[in-house]
Amino acid sequence: MKLNIALLAGDGIGPEVIDQAVKVSDAVAKKFGHEITWKPALTGAAAIDAVGEPYPDETHNVCKSSDAVLFGAIGDPKYDNDPSAPVRPEQGLLKMRKALGLFANVRPTFVFPSLLDKSPLKKERIEGTDLVFLRELTGGIYFGEKGRRDDRNTAYDNCVYTKEEVTRLARKGFELAMQRSKRLCCVDKANVLETSRLWRETVQGLEAEYPEVQVSYEFVDAVAMRLVQWPSDYDVLITENLFGDILTDEASVISGSMGLMPSASLGSDIGLFEPIHGSYPQAAGKNIANPMATVLSAAMMFENFGLTEEGKVIREAVNKALAEGIVTEDLADGDKAYGTSEVGDWLAASI
Amino acid sequence: MKLNIALLAGDGIGPEVIDQAVKVSDAVAKKFGHEITWKPALTGAAAIDAVGEPYPDETHNVCKSSDAVLFGAIGDPKYDNDPSAPVRPEQGLLKMRKALGLFANVRPTFVFPSLLDKSPLKKERIEGTDLVFLRELTGGIYFGEKGRRDDRNTAYDNCVYTKEEVTRLARKGFELAMQRSKRLCCVDKANVLETSRLWRETVQGLEAEYPEVQVSYEFVDAVAMRLVQWPSDYDVLITENLFGDILTDEASVISGSMGLMPSASLGSDIGLFEPIHGSYPQAAGKNIANPMATVLSAAMMFENFGLTEEGKVIREAVNKALAEGIVTEDLADGDKAYGTSEVGDWLAASI
Ligand SMILES: CC(C)[C@H](C(=O)O)[C@@H](O)C(=O)O
Ligand SMILES: CC(C)[C@H](C(=O)O)[C@@H](O)C(=O)O
Repeated sequence: MKLNIALLAGDGIGPEVIDQAVKVSDAVAKKFGHEITWKPALTGAAAIDAVGEPYPDETHNVCKSSDAVLFGAIGDPKYDNDPSAPVRPEQGLLKMRKALGLFANVRPTFVFPSLLDKSPLKKERIEGTDLVFLRELTGGIYFGEKGRRDDRNTAYDNCVYTKEEVTRLARKGFELAMQRSKRLCCVDKANVLETSRLWRETVQGLEAEYPEVQVSYEFVDAVAMRLVQWPSDYDVLITENLFGDILTDEASVISGSMGLMPSASLGSDIGLFEPIHGSYPQAAGKNIANPMATVLSAAMMFENFGLTEEGKVIREAVNKALAEGIVTEDLADGDKAYGTSEVGDWLAASI
Repeated sequence: MKLNIALLAGDGIGPEVIDQAVKVSDAVAKKFGHEITWKPALTGAAAIDAVGEPYPDETHNVCKSSDAVLFGAIGDPKYDNDPSAPVRPEQGLLKMRKALGLFANVRPTFVFPSLLDKSPLKKERIEGTDLVFLRELTGGIYFGEKGRRDDRNTAYDNCVYTKEEVTRLARKGFELAMQRSKRLCCVDKANVLETSRLWRETVQGLEAEYPEVQVSYEFVDAVAMRLVQWPSDYDVLITENLFGDILTDEASVISGSMGLMPSASLGSDIGLFEPIHGSYPQAAGKNIANPMATVLSAAMMFENFGLTEEGKVIREAVNKALAEGIVTEDLADGDKAYGTSEVGDWLAASI
């Protein structure tokens, strides 16, 4: 297979972890006879510094002419204390999601048996946790009309959803549930919000098409509790943009393996794959960042092309590295810590 | 002091736990020479069954002519599966909050040393946790315009905040912080929402009036993570209605003492005091529900009248009951479990 992959390294540790995912992907390509052409492009604070905006047209063109996007991280502390600055890295992120039609953010949370001790939760609470959130990513209050009135003393944000937006996300949820344990949880606040009632009735309307899937409906506040109490009860969860933002981050810390969690954003033909961790500016350039989440994001990318064996080989390499202690300092626990690039080299070599 | 207290027992276990809070409050009144007149009124599903609506005018009149409201719980499974039914208990709750001007929901999360083991979190993560959320309760997306258009295929919910609404809640936050460790965290999503930017700039504008308070600003998704990772880092948190709904529920389970957590809703002269747990219909009428959260809510009520000693006496009685194992089955751990009313009798007698 010939693959053109846009490479958006972004800010902070982005470039370093992306380098390792490239190494590993190239090793996989070599082993399976694929040919990958990497097409680097600017994004985030790096793009603002270079050309004045966080998601320049040129970057969009590179993405549009690629088969997928591999993304590092964005965010720079110099923008953090002024959320109303006219140009910020986050705007690029939202623009990119919308422009590429990435309406479904896929965020798995699973545990690595060797890392159970890292969790803030007790072992018996998280054992067996293996859930996936599908977060709607291009609608809701993120993209509704927003502004000020009354001399800027009143602010408003509109949350809007259409039936089509809910349907396409929900269908992905049902399909994913069919590939897994056939359980789907629709997370909403239908006791208060009209958009949630639309979500609920739309999902209810799809149930008949997927008779094997067992669907439950839970309020977002209840899920925020139960994720901490009994995370392993969940399988596939679908939810709207803002609830998804909050709950996927909450879910990511319960496993204790946050630094290892990959994600995918899907929608149009072009998927985007990225680690869930941020740009971690304090660690930038120090060769200490954990590249495994980005490497596992590359695995999701292969799997999304239907290349399941290729994905599996990467996952096995990561498991082996964890078992043999070939890890960066965040997982070293006082034992020898390897550098970001050493872990990447080891993973590539073991493939 | 002469006190008129509206008594809204509500649904499920509400009446049973309220009975114990009445017993304990009467014991306190006797000890300190106060005179409490209890004025029962209907609310929740019980009110729908009796008079067709969840917060009848008559109940509102009872509340308005009282000095405070002691509230049990509302919710009945017969309404749960149809969030768009024309009359539901939750509507009564929202109407009551608005009608009584209860704009500040005060939700403490603290740990009882003897109950640390009940937490889903590891002991070393929750030790020392003692935080309070101030959730805005009468604005935001809960009360904005909502509806459908395009033949019901598009739904919308408006989130609106005015500077005054933010200011009055934030002031309560600063004042509470001054009484505690002088740390205040403003939780928002100012990188995306205009209402959050109004929140942030309004709180920033108040900082100069409270120079001793150290204020931090965190995004809601980050707080959802850090509450699980390092709950004891937080002290006073202020936030808008929907974020508060999600985060206070999340916070309530980390302590392991959810069944013991009280709350207050303040605003006008009349405060409302209630346990954070729900109506727990499976346990209704069985004399097994834990009354301690309601009893501690009564303690908050006394404290809100400035009767700190009275509140303290109740808290001490609860601590003593926990230490001596005078607890309901949820806390009995295989040892003898006492009934709801026995725990109430014991607490009243020990005062
Ligand atoms: C940076 C921010 C705009 C973004 C979001 O809220 O979607 C981030 O939190 C995420 O989850 O990808
Ligand atoms: C029942 C519901 C409307 C209510 C809310 O969302 O405010 C509840 O979850 C709460 O937190 O008191």
